Amino acid sequence: MYLVDGAPCDHLPVDDRGLQFGDGLFETIAIVSGRPCLLERHLARLVRGAEALSLPAPDLERITADVTRLATAGPGCGVVKVVWTAGSGGRGYARPDPVTPRRIVSRHPAPQHPASHWSDGITACLVTVPLARQPHLAGIKHLNRLEQTLARAQWQGAGVAEGLMCDEGGRFIEGTMSNLFVVHGGCVVTPRLDECGIAGVMREAIMDKLAADGAPATEGEVTLETLQEATEVFVCNSVNGVWPVRRIDGVGHWRVGPVSRRLLHWLDREALACTPAGRDEQRNGRA
Amino acid sequence: MYLVDGAPCDHLPVDDRGLQFGDGLFETIAIVSGRPCLLERHLARLVRGAEALSLPAPDLERITADVTRLATAGPGCGVVKVVWTAGSGGRGYARPDPVTPRRIVSRHPAPQHPASHWSDGITACLVTVPLARQPHLAGIKHLNRLEQTLARAQWQGAGVAEGLMCDEGGRFIEGTMSNLFVVHGGCVVTPRLDECGIAGVMREAIMDKLAADGAPATEGEVTLETLQEATEVFVCNSVNGVWPVRRIDGVGHWRVGPVSRRLLHWLDREALACTPAGRDEQRNGRA
Repeated sequence: MYLVDGAPCDHLPVDDRGLQFGDGLFETIAIVSGRPCLLERHLARLVRGAEALSLPAPDLERITADVTRLATAGPGCGVVKVVWTAGSGGRGYARPDPVTPRRIVSRHPAPQHPASHWSDGITACLVTVPLARQPHLAGIKHLNRLEQTLARAQWQGAGVAEGLMCDEGGRFIEGTMSNLFVVHGGCVVTPRLDECGIAGVMREAIMDKLAADGAPATEGEVTLETLQEATEVFVCNSVNGVWPVRRIDGVGHWRVGPVSRRLLHWLDREALACTPAGRDEQRNGRA
Repeated sequence: MYLVDGAPCDHLPVDDRGLQFGDGLFETIAIVSGRPCLLERHLARLVRGAEALSLPAPDLERITADVTRLATAGPGCGVVKVVWTAGSGGRGYARPDPVTPRRIVSRHPAPQHPASHWSDGITACLVTVPLARQPHLAGIKHLNRLEQTLARAQWQGAGVAEGLMCDEGGRFIEGTMSNLFVVHGGCVVTPRLDECGIAGVMREAIMDKLAADGAPATEGEVTLETLQEATEVFVCNSVNGVWPVRRIDGVGHWRVGPVSRRLLHWLDREALACTPAGRDEQRNGRA
């Protein structure tokens, strides 16, 4: 189901700059028990992204109304995607003045991954498409996603759950659809995202949680050596929460460690992502 | 006027991957006297782009029919834009299997620039948004155009006709909507595009023309020093043809030189772009 500027509609004008140039932003929000998870963080990131791209500030009241409407328009678990574009425009790169932004809010099924992704961890691969260094776009969840599309095409089959991407210098930055954390020398480290990568909402929530628990994560460089010396590796995103990484082909293998376990427990308790517990709740009719 | 998969329509499905991820390509074709200019080169580049992005090969017969239809559906001069996307898909980065591509062909007015842009040259500025190095996407005219959008927002007003973009190393690569040529030490040089930039159809046509005339251009590095030592600078694109560069703010100034003049004469004679001559022809009722 799609809402375009609040109205049920599955089409949009061809001259939308989101299509013509990828001139826009998006958010992917988990729905658990009919409630949007981490909504305030998603909205705050959308605001930051709009500032970075000099787009009009998102209309948070209307976006919240659309999200709430779609969150309850299906099973308890699901995903709501928000797209905020620069709206209709002419043929050139110059935006119209004024810009009339367009919002597109859609509901999708919760992805169906095996419960073992959470309990036993996943196998990931290394993709060969690098993330380009572009400080003007780093961290922003914008609509220019060809790098992720090319990267995601580099593996098939359910045996590999995620592909990890490096920058041109071989530093590990993130997965195609997730952020990366490692436990190294007893400290939790996540790659810096000042030159490329997407600053995930779940990454932010996890960093705040770890800090609140007195063991803050640091943003740093994650190299092949960091990974090989790590005692624990996990990836995260807003929809799935945390997946421990059991193995990265050609890099190494790890056990599901205490940091991952603690975070998984927290996500389930607070119902912050579409984890198996959230789906069980739904099946048991409690959602 | 828009054709979506051949049918007159100004809307497209919201789940098109062109909107969701910028997963697609485009071409911008000048129309002169009702004929699409350099059409074979445009179609060949679209084919190369589809190969690079692993998109289905463009349906050249249907695209040509759409372009021809719109080329004659208005004044003699104009612009036809072709967009070729990965079509409708789900929420994730993985493309559906099979991909059902979508073609969107639209007609737009010829831009109205002063005739002095061709005869006396333009003023350009330097923009501060760098072009990111991404060999997997370099050269391709794909739909991820936030860099150009951010760059184009860095100047206002008609006094500046183009903004020049450098890579992170400060090498000049192209304009926001054009390719760059300089005459340096008696040789024509255009920046290499193996790490970033768009390999323009007009750039290719000009390189072939210069080679045919016995003075081939070379692809090389164009630095600030190259520009300051250059005897002639010009930019080009499919729609406008060639604009001599009279001045780049903060870099230097040049006269309209013999290479630019020869190319301008050739473009007019062969009617290869929306130059003032093409527009005069239209006004005089010869188109």
